[in-house]
Amino acid sequence: MRVEIWSDVACPWCYVGKARFEKGLEAFAHRADVEVVHRSFELDPNRAKGDVVPVVDLLAQKYGRTPEQARAMEETVAANAHAEGLGYVTEGRDSGSTFDIHRVLHLAKERGLQSELLDLAYRANFAGTASVFDDEVLVGLAVRAGLAEAEVRAVLADPSAYAGAVRADEREAAELGASGVPFFVFDRRYGLSGGQPAEVFTKALEQAWQGRSPLVQVAAEGQACDVDGNCA
Amino acid sequence: MRVEIWSDVACPWCYVGKARFEKGLEAFAHRADVEVVHRSFELDPNRAKGDVVPVVDLLAQKYGRTPEQARAMEETVAANAHAEGLGYVTEGRDSGSTFDIHRVLHLAKERGLQSELLDLAYRANFAGTASVFDDEVLVGLAVRAGLAEAEVRAVLADPSAYAGAVRADEREAAELGASGVPFFVFDRRYGLSGGQPAEVFTKALEQAWQGRSPLVQVAAEGQACDVDGNCA
Repeated sequence: MRVEIWSDVACPWCYVGKARFEKGLEAFAHRADVEVVHRSFELDPNRAKGDVVPVVDLLAQKYGRTPEQARAMEETVAANAHAEGLGYVTEGRDSGSTFDIHRVLHLAKERGLQSELLDLAYRANFAGTASVFDDEVLVGLAVRAGLAEAEVRAVLADPSAYAGAVRADEREAAELGASGVPFFVFDRRYGLSGGQPAEVFTKALEQAWQGRSPLVQVAAEGQACDVDGNCA
Repeated sequence: MRVEIWSDVACPWCYVGKARFEKGLEAFAHRADVEVVHRSFELDPNRAKGDVVPVVDLLAQKYGRTPEQARAMEETVAANAHAEGLGYVTEGRDSGSTFDIHRVLHLAKERGLQSELLDLAYRANFAGTASVFDDEVLVGLAVRAGLAEAEVRAVLADPSAYAGAVRADEREAAELGASGVPFFVFDRRYGLSGGQPAEVFTKALEQAWQGRSPLVQVAAEGQACDVDGNCA
């Protein structure tokens, strides 16, 4: 079974939701048969690369919230993060374009290091004060995840590298009906939105597992080899 | 859309089928939205590592065919391969355990080089006379595909490396009802067996594309962030 998770490094519920999903997966009997793929989704796809502002200011200015409301929002997420054993700082965090982070996450995916880099990026963004929107910070995280520094720098230097992969993920999210993240899809048949409690993920995994149905054969059998060595 | 292809480097119809599938995919309008994953399947999972014999002898001895029948089988495949522009030698090829090749293919998958290594292994096995069942030949192919030699040797030296991944692929093939290869699965909903003509693959891709259905939501929306910056 395959679970695809659309998320953004700038999305606090994605950070919390990844931990909850992994806890829910731990409790699922067939967890060894589950493959997890992370997919790109930008909360703010039109944000320009250098446009980095403090999160609390952004919440207050762009979305018309008072500084108190913005801080209260952050406190709510922080409480949820802490309940999952995750660090969360409510002051001093930045907000910016996550496009380059997604591009490097696609490189990490090709190298089998996607989940590792995503965890490091989440932790840097939500539990630390180093800005993941700074290329040097991002390179450092990618290298810690196990990527080759030169490869990471090559991706950052070429704006077209993995840009298509990011856009394809986002197009798919829209086609599947996602309006926000985190967004979880099980075998392209079942969907689940939001950073649900771990038990909800376990139940969703069980439902999706039960709901697997026999394949629909789209044509008669063609030329094949079977385990008896017949290649007729 | 995701297409999974179960195959074995020892399976001539998989070799021919991969080329036909890729031709069929070329003619599919939404090919940019298709992700292809190759999965492991051994035609002879009980074959011991060093047990390498000429293919024609194997066909004749193990499956009770006369040398003429064995050669005729090879000629049939060769004609099909040539029609796809693929090389095929009917004499001098070896047959052996493909388990280690599958393990190295899983390493290649993690490095984004799976299709490249599979192509090189097929070509070596069917269009050449170097034995892919020889570790040094396999290392050479893997390096040509772009893998780091030390990594490949480390996998070959550790029989447990990616062994679970190979077995998991094979278990899934059985669960999905595959009795032979190549075996093609579209979004885990549609199945197609054998090295079909390219047009059949294009049609299957079209049918699977049309047959995509809305996701079944398994729970009410949880805590999420939307593209308006709301993380309520």
